[in-house]
Amino acid sequence: MIASYHEAFMAYLTEQTATKEPASLYAPTQYILQLGGKRIRPLLALMAADAVQGSFEEALPAALAVEIFHNFSLVHDDIMDEAPLRRGKPTVHEKWDVNTAILSGDVMLVNAYQCLNVYPPELFSALTPLFSLTAQQVCEGQQYDMDFPLQESVSQEAYLHMIKFKTAVLLGCSLQMGAMVGGLSKEESQAFYDFGIQLGLAFQLQDDYLDAFGDPETFGKQVGGDIIENKKTLLYLLALENGTQEEKTVLSTLFSSSSSNQEEKVERVKAIFKSTKADEKIQALIKDYTDQALKTVEDFSIPSEKKAVFTAFAKELMERKL
Amino acid sequence: MIASYHEAFMAYLTEQTATKEPASLYAPTQYILQLGGKRIRPLLALMAADAVQGSFEEALPAALAVEIFHNFSLVHDDIMDEAPLRRGKPTVHEKWDVNTAILSGDVMLVNAYQCLNVYPPELFSALTPLFSLTAQQVCEGQQYDMDFPLQESVSQEAYLHMIKFKTAVLLGCSLQMGAMVGGLSKEESQAFYDFGIQLGLAFQLQDDYLDAFGDPETFGKQVGGDIIENKKTLLYLLALENGTQEEKTVLSTLFSSSSSNQEEKVERVKAIFKSTKADEKIQALIKDYTDQALKTVEDFSIPSEKKAVFTAFAKELMERKL
Repeated sequence: MIASYHEAFMAYLTEQTATKEPASLYAPTQYILQLGGKRIRPLLALMAADAVQGSFEEALPAALAVEIFHNFSLVHDDIMDEAPLRRGKPTVHEKWDVNTAILSGDVMLVNAYQCLNVYPPELFSALTPLFSLTAQQVCEGQQYDMDFPLQESVSQEAYLHMIKFKTAVLLGCSLQMGAMVGGLSKEESQAFYDFGIQLGLAFQLQDDYLDAFGDPETFGKQVGGDIIENKKTLLYLLALENGTQEEKTVLSTLFSSSSSNQEEKVERVKAIFKSTKADEKIQALIKDYTDQALKTVEDFSIPSEKKAVFTAFAKELMERKL
Repeated sequence: MIASYHEAFMAYLTEQTATKEPASLYAPTQYILQLGGKRIRPLLALMAADAVQGSFEEALPAALAVEIFHNFSLVHDDIMDEAPLRRGKPTVHEKWDVNTAILSGDVMLVNAYQCLNVYPPELFSALTPLFSLTAQQVCEGQQYDMDFPLQESVSQEAYLHMIKFKTAVLLGCSLQMGAMVGGLSKEESQAFYDFGIQLGLAFQLQDDYLDAFGDPETFGKQVGGDIIENKKTLLYLLALENGTQEEKTVLSTLFSSSSSNQEEKVERVKAIFKSTKADEKIQALIKDYTDQALKTVEDFSIPSEKKAVFTAFAKELMERKL
């Protein structure tokens, strides 16, 4: 089923983002949209619509809106992070330049809104404010993320709030928009949103965990990347909170410099993550959010037999089989 | 009347853009929105609504949407143009940094959409696609503007298309949204849009003219700035089209270097603008668009006595009394 959603979505994406003028503005948007990725957000929108009304085609425009928005945020985030690569290919600002990446990103944000134009007034005016609020929160999440390195201390709560805004709300929005296109009201579709938030938090925390402790063969990114970049992920915050005075000092020192011996630094930090049980604590939290998500599926206003697809999706996502 | 619109608008703007968290994201948006400017776009929205339904208050959200959008485009354009100053004050990317300017601009674009959330479904779903199309065209206009210096030749038609998208469509959108909030349908309000386009073209061409031939005392910007920056405005294109072979060669040479003697360069270019009658031709075009705009006012679906405010506004704007 996921495969047929994926195929239909890619056909729709390709058709809807055909070449437009000026090519210098739209070539980068086509490039980033065709770079690949798991297409998790549009798939969630299509799954939700299908579960509610027994077909997913009507949700293709909403699915495209969230995917274009997601890619807009990648283009602008990559400028801010000075990232050279995205999915193994040059980022837009590298392949073209920063100005092109800014402006192509801007028009993608507008294009994302325009995807929703096809829906009738009542539905359009229910979807658009949800989409806007989500977009606003994603920007706020990115700002919190940029602010953290400048702050002396970051609370666990602040970190969870950041990843909720930066990552989870768009999953929630995708699911809820799909359910609303399927015919549910804003209120009736709330559980779909909540499921997305919980799954998104679990997914992002797992990403943090795997960045340090993942299998280099299967993780897809450089293991230890967050540590090398001194990123204050939850693993770091938990270690700092639960460590001895000595562990805290060592960790702070390691995170305040760009060590010449990266491999040694990664190993030393990972040892502290383990000795402070930060690794176990984050795993417990991941399990907690995953369990919450699975439980939330029970509240979906759909027949029981249709719920299995969401629990299966959540499990596969958390086992990184998707 | 204009003064009372202005006051009401500024009160609404200040109330609606009160401090939000994270401050690092929203302080720049407050800064740019409070920098001043003539507020032409929101005033046009309020004038149109007032002319149609006899009150302007309902159009304040639409007026704020276009003003926030306009300021979003200034923040991002200033990054692209590496402009140090805006209205005599440091630009956002200078006062903060480029990343802050990118992200604050992004959230302003979203906030602009959110202003429209207050309208009932039918009106909301009529206004939002018009706003989106306009936003898309403004991005396209900026891209054309960035592409021109890289092109060997630019046609008059291409130049007019660029300034239509970059400047005029947002004036048209402001007026039409105001008229629609006032109760007119999309079709009934088309003349308001057309008036904005014609006035916008006249205004932008006059800006090009004044940049070369304006009174340094009253123009507000450095006279000759476009010439110093080798900007291919319509004056340049007309001179190139109508000049002798020698004039073309001199003009091209002057525009392909950054002359050490700026004053001499400006004088030499202006002499060619005059000898080729580019100055007269652009003035004829400005008059043409202004006349068209004044004529379009006749088509407004409002009582005759209410039309005078638009003709007066157009005349004052073109005499730069606003």
